Amino acid sequence: MTSTTLLHLDSSISPSGSVSRALTARFAAAWRARHGVAARHRHHDLAADPVPPVRAAYDALGRRTERKGILPLDDIGRLAEGPDEAHEWALSRPLIEELRAAGTLLIGSPMYNYTVSTGLKAWIDRVTFPGVHHDPETGAPLLRDTRVVVVAVRGGGYGPGTPRAHCDFQVPYLRAYFDRIGVAAEHLHVVTAELTRAADIPALNALQPLAAESLAAAEAAIDELAARL
Amino acid sequence: MTSTTLLHLDSSISPSGSVSRALTARFAAAWRARHGVAARHRHHDLAADPVPPVRAAYDALGRRTERKGILPLDDIGRLAEGPDEAHEWALSRPLIEELRAAGTLLIGSPMYNYTVSTGLKAWIDRVTFPGVHHDPETGAPLLRDTRVVVVAVRGGGYGPGTPRAHCDFQVPYLRAYFDRIGVAAEHLHVVTAELTRAADIPALNALQPLAAESLAAAEAAIDELAARL
Repeated sequence: MTSTTLLHLDSSISPSGSVSRALTARFAAAWRARHGVAARHRHHDLAADPVPPVRAAYDALGRRTERKGILPLDDIGRLAEGPDEAHEWALSRPLIEELRAAGTLLIGSPMYNYTVSTGLKAWIDRVTFPGVHHDPETGAPLLRDTRVVVVAVRGGGYGPGTPRAHCDFQVPYLRAYFDRIGVAAEHLHVVTAELTRAADIPALNALQPLAAESLAAAEAAIDELAARL
Repeated sequence: MTSTTLLHLDSSISPSGSVSRALTARFAAAWRARHGVAARHRHHDLAADPVPPVRAAYDALGRRTERKGILPLDDIGRLAEGPDEAHEWALSRPLIEELRAAGTLLIGSPMYNYTVSTGLKAWIDRVTFPGVHHDPETGAPLLRDTRVVVVAVRGGGYGPGTPRAHCDFQVPYLRAYFDRIGVAAEHLHVVTAELTRAADIPALNALQPLAAESLAAAEAAIDELAARL
């Protein structure tokens, strides 16, 4: 059984006019309407309220932990030496528990310079503490039933066959990352909206009809996912 | 002619025991010894002293600029509206000028969760303002003579033919990024050290001899580059 909790992360630096924020909000509204008042919707704005980047003490505690294998969270906390390590763990543990408790993880990811935003990367580094996404007893992935919806928004075009397809270090990256932390391939859903900067960038102006098609397809995909997740 | 200035960026979160920091320091020491006291060595620690992540006003100014094409830096500054945009530009411009002035850019990049660190991504986002790496008159790339040395350090193995080769979103990413901002392929040098966590991670313990080989090869490559760049 998965929990009826939606963990919703936005990472666009633009509070208004952001396509990724509009699409995640569309998913969240439909999801809330469907699951009712008992369902929990947790939202983090990783741009306005960034997760503190991991520091040296996080790495030190991570290495000490990793040498011991997969540990329960309480045991990791007891391994922390000194106030810096305790502080790094105090910043990380709630975010790790929040991710583990989510039935559905919704991520708004604009592409900045061919990959994810700094804010999303800071969250990824913070929640990817050694061993915490696997069962200490069995080694089984704790996120195998978690549904992940990635809303990947790109100013240009990076689809298969386009000249910049090889420059997409966003969607293939997030697929590899979520596979690594144990999310099942059948539970990872990627919705892309492309060419969202077509109106702003002179060289892309002629592609505005394709941009509109891409956005409409993304909205339809969001609606379809929100009706069944 | 390229300038005799070395811009040296480190991004490992570990101040001590960092392989990437040791390798960039090795390059910088050899480079300084060769170029003498007149050469300038600028160093930024992107982990201890992070570049502030770009914010909404950076994006707003960037879009306004992009609609006008490639502009001189002074003109971009004049386009800034309000204190937030002026502040974002004041944070960006010195870093952009510093990059443009460098004859050689040296980057220490540890792989964290399959890609670059949060600190390095924050720098990338900050210096990649629309148009600033191309000549407003001719459109020619301003960084075409800049030598770039990327020291890519990975805890595991991601080389060709290894099981996780497809998870390397660090080196191919940085190659695509520097190509995009106009660095010539023949001036981009990537030195990798792999399996640097072999002693810490039980599953990798048997690979320690390979790790030692990889580090020795990286040191030799650094020495060779420092003798000619």
